[in-house]
Amino acid sequence: MSLTHELRNDPILGRWVIVTRNSSTSPSDHITEREMPDDPLTCPLCAGKESDTPRVIPDFMSLLRMDGDLNRRGVGMYDKMEGIGASEIIIESPEHFLTPWEMGMEQVTKVFLTYKERILELEKDPRLRYVLISKNYGKAAGASYTHPHSYLIASPIIPKRIKEELDGAKLYYRLKERCIFCDIIHEEERMAERIVLRRNDFVVFCPFAPAFPFEIWIMPRRHNCAFQDVESEELKELGITIITIMDKLKRLLNYPPYNLILHTAPNRIPRRDHWHTLGDDFHWHIEIVPRLINTGFEWTKGFYILTISPEEGAKYLREV
Amino acid sequence: MSLTHELRNDPILGRWVIVTRNSSTSPSDHITEREMPDDPLTCPLCAGKESDTPRVIPDFMSLLRMDGDLNRRGVGMYDKMEGIGASEIIIESPEHFLTPWEMGMEQVTKVFLTYKERILELEKDPRLRYVLISKNYGKAAGASYTHPHSYLIASPIIPKRIKEELDGAKLYYRLKERCIFCDIIHEEERMAERIVLRRNDFVVFCPFAPAFPFEIWIMPRRHNCAFQDVESEELKELGITIITIMDKLKRLLNYPPYNLILHTAPNRIPRRDHWHTLGDDFHWHIEIVPRLINTGFEWTKGFYILTISPEEGAKYLREV
Repeated sequence: MSLTHELRNDPILGRWVIVTRNSSTSPSDHITEREMPDDPLTCPLCAGKESDTPRVIPDFMSLLRMDGDLNRRGVGMYDKMEGIGASEIIIESPEHFLTPWEMGMEQVTKVFLTYKERILELEKDPRLRYVLISKNYGKAAGASYTHPHSYLIASPIIPKRIKEELDGAKLYYRLKERCIFCDIIHEEERMAERIVLRRNDFVVFCPFAPAFPFEIWIMPRRHNCAFQDVESEELKELGITIITIMDKLKRLLNYPPYNLILHTAPNRIPRRDHWHTLGDDFHWHIEIVPRLINTGFEWTKGFYILTISPEEGAKYLREV
Repeated sequence: MSLTHELRNDPILGRWVIVTRNSSTSPSDHITEREMPDDPLTCPLCAGKESDTPRVIPDFMSLLRMDGDLNRRGVGMYDKMEGIGASEIIIESPEHFLTPWEMGMEQVTKVFLTYKERILELEKDPRLRYVLISKNYGKAAGASYTHPHSYLIASPIIPKRIKEELDGAKLYYRLKERCIFCDIIHEEERMAERIVLRRNDFVVFCPFAPAFPFEIWIMPRRHNCAFQDVESEELKELGITIITIMDKLKRLLNYPPYNLILHTAPNRIPRRDHWHTLGDDFHWHIEIVPRLINTGFEWTKGFYILTISPEEGAKYLREV
């Protein structure tokens, strides 16, 4: 049977991807070997075992620094500024060998509470425009350590991919006067074919035009642009949602390497008034991308090819 | 000595990157092992050795097909269309073992002439909006074969990265009524510190805010939005420019894997009138990105880190 393909447009980013209509492969064709943990004796994240609370330390690379002015300026026709900001490692647990597959709901909730506290603290600094938090698990996903940790970067710029999402959502809001993410939640529930999981506070699905197969979006039902406004009941629900998704990924894709990225609004201080009106057009959420082999790839400069469709991906994830 | 960093903005894409000010590494810290050629007995590009002229064959993957209508349509709130288009392999030479490091000026010129002929042919199809041509050399750069070849994809969509470049150049033109690429050429010649090579028809430099170290832009001095309008004298000059750059890359970076991408305007037929006015704001050019180890990386969602600055990179490339 010859493969046929269609082109699909991501409604937020305006990015077209090529999706295989009739896949001839299954998840097991693409899973990677499970990664082994580092030696705890050489692990730089293993100090300070006294408490279960996640600890936050400065990143060892110190790519950005907190002292000094931005000094944003032109150099001929170009623009630059000082490398001001913070890069931090959030050590999720003192337990070196604790994997995402074994972490309980309570600990996951504590980790997300730490995310919230860090954003609330860092957004007070008027030089900083965005706090980006991600968890990379596994070497193939860019992780430097196997000890459970997340990564934070607070900087005077909005990361390009987030900026594109904000701009796309703003354009949609201008056209419809509705949040595009609220509309997507509604549409995914109506169509049902890409839904992975539905809970009271969260809907989980594979997006219509993803960059990678088995890409998963976790979307809160309550409209809010900023993750740091999340309430404690929602955090608990989020914890349950995350461990359910991790269990599905583990069983379907053999403990895959993955990236988890928190997408939230830019810092609101000192721009709270600005966001008080503009927050209607953005909706915080979480994106999870397993890093598999040969199931999708970026084909030079923005062509993404999906050899497993999001409908198939969601079906596998629902049924596992 | 502790590293200090600055943030730089790419004036076309509006993308900020982190650039190390005082590098503690040298090119030799980052070079990869030279790749060995495939076995010619199993090479699918080795048939048809009768002529030195580059041959064009359909890609074996057939991701897109040429028959049928686009059928662009909405599905609920989403958009899709049929996977119409062409994906082709341009076999640059019948010589299996010919590497970019040994290819002469005449053969390189023939390859670029083939690019021109394919674009002129494919842009006649009103369903197709863009012809993207790239050369990937080496497994680390995504090449499937070692036999010398380029890759072409003609599709009804403009690749996202190219679209961003077109949009950025258009915005600049609205502001200044000048081509941003012409301004960049002028600025780079004035500043001189990122220049790699100057010839009559082309200027070669490392861009101010690149995504990767040793990234190289080859810019024609004559303003023209479309590569397919290139004249035969320019093609010869381009051939000499390319082999000079390849010689520098070979000696400095030990035959590195790389991507070479032709950036040209969208197809002008049936939109010639449209581009007759709009062509002022775009300028065709070539971007070359060596794929090295540990010299730069994408740090989740659009933060690029450069551990060797473009000024240092250009100096190494000038002096090698």
